[in-house]
Amino acid sequence: MARRALALEYDGRFFCGFQSQPSGESVQDALERALEAITATKLRVVAAGRTDAGVHATLQIVHFDAEVERPANAWVRGVNAHLPPSAAVLWCLDVSCEFHARFGASARHYTYLLQNRPERPGLWAGRVGWHHAALDDDAMREAARALSGTHDFSSFRAAECQARSPVRTLHRLDIARIGTLVRFDFTADAFLHHMIRNIIGALVEVGAGKRSPSWVAELLGAADRTRGAPTFAPDGLYFTGADYDARFALPVTRRGVAAMLP
Amino acid sequence: MARRALALEYDGRFFCGFQSQPSGESVQDALERALEAITATKLRVVAAGRTDAGVHATLQIVHFDAEVERPANAWVRGVNAHLPPSAAVLWCLDVSCEFHARFGASARHYTYLLQNRPERPGLWAGRVGWHHAALDDDAMREAARALSGTHDFSSFRAAECQARSPVRTLHRLDIARIGTLVRFDFTADAFLHHMIRNIIGALVEVGAGKRSPSWVAELLGAADRTRGAPTFAPDGLYFTGADYDARFALPVTRRGVAAMLP
Repeated sequence: MARRALALEYDGRFFCGFQSQPSGESVQDALERALEAITATKLRVVAAGRTDAGVHATLQIVHFDAEVERPANAWVRGVNAHLPPSAAVLWCLDVSCEFHARFGASARHYTYLLQNRPERPGLWAGRVGWHHAALDDDAMREAARALSGTHDFSSFRAAECQARSPVRTLHRLDIARIGTLVRFDFTADAFLHHMIRNIIGALVEVGAGKRSPSWVAELLGAADRTRGAPTFAPDGLYFTGADYDARFALPVTRRGVAAMLP
Repeated sequence: MARRALALEYDGRFFCGFQSQPSGESVQDALERALEAITATKLRVVAAGRTDAGVHATLQIVHFDAEVERPANAWVRGVNAHLPPSAAVLWCLDVSCEFHARFGASARHYTYLLQNRPERPGLWAGRVGWHHAALDDDAMREAARALSGTHDFSSFRAAECQARSPVRTLHRLDIARIGTLVRFDFTADAFLHHMIRNIIGALVEVGAGKRSPSWVAELLGAADRTRGAPTFAPDGLYFTGADYDARFALPVTRRGVAAMLP
């Protein structure tokens, strides 16, 4: 059985999340249908990040096993011809059977884009989160510092989360502002279900002055989701890549939102 | 009669162009319905740039006349509550009756975003144009130089164009590249119907090596649309604002695509 790694990008508004659904309207369903059209075999893909409905990807990594041989461009151009317009394969290559898109990822990267202005988004509707009142970035940065490192993130974990452990290591949570757009860059070994959207919800309450920065540290320590803020909208969330061992010699596995537009 | 100027942004994929259509699915139709919901009167808006179906706006300017008085935020938040998600009002203010969004605009600005990579767009489908083969930016820049200044642009004018004269003054046509994205910035007194999309079509033929840079100057001189390249897709085209006399004291009337994302 030959294993292949594949990178794709998608606009999450047009899918009901990554993971296969009975409706057949997930990214996984669309990708498997397109691969099956090329290979004339049934197959299953495994992804680095199972994004929620409405969450986008600048670069998602999957792997799949297929016996069939196809010319290199069939895996990209051929599959793209069978995918809906809002998803596209970026590259595909043969990998060792030891490669695993999910269990082999040593780190995952996400960015949340939040439009912070009185007027709701129009041109960027569905592609940015929104908060109408001015946010205090320094207060959000102060609050965010408590989250870096290895912690029990139960306070930011969805009730439906299936992970065995609530402990994760957050390597990076940077907050930057460009005009009315606030950008949150996350890197962790892995993320719990809704973890980023729940963190954004809490940071926005701090930025809006409803809570003090130290509240986030208290919330983290409480390990109790019921004390947290509401889950923020998926609209502004982008999966931006994952890291793998260099021995797999993959092409680019990470692409920030900054690379998307000038 | 009180005149008001209003700025809005929109994602052109969700409208059949700016100008009112029997289907009622244009930006103008949506905006007039929203304004009528606020004012309980019939009214008509006049825009700086009547964008085609699929063309976006980071900042479109319109004016309208309405007798009714409403609190300042009714014109923004109130109208936004009645607009579809893919359009949003950015500001609205009282102006002199001498202000005219169309005839008073001394210059108009557009940007075309072209994704230049082998793989078709996915995440940015409908928001960027696409050419699969590598383009020679320097050849496109050389060709573009012939277009600056005052010329008869008949070779880049749609058959349906209703302008009285084909003569326009192109103040700016800058070409920049950020990775796989090529960005074309246009400023002119005004543009003919399909003028930018026809220029992009010609420049891409030069960039792809199908035509020499000097062909664009010849094409311009021929004043004959039938000799030109096909009209390029609307997907990557953004109306980014217009200039007005300072005496109208308008807020920002121009917003580049660069302001949209980091």
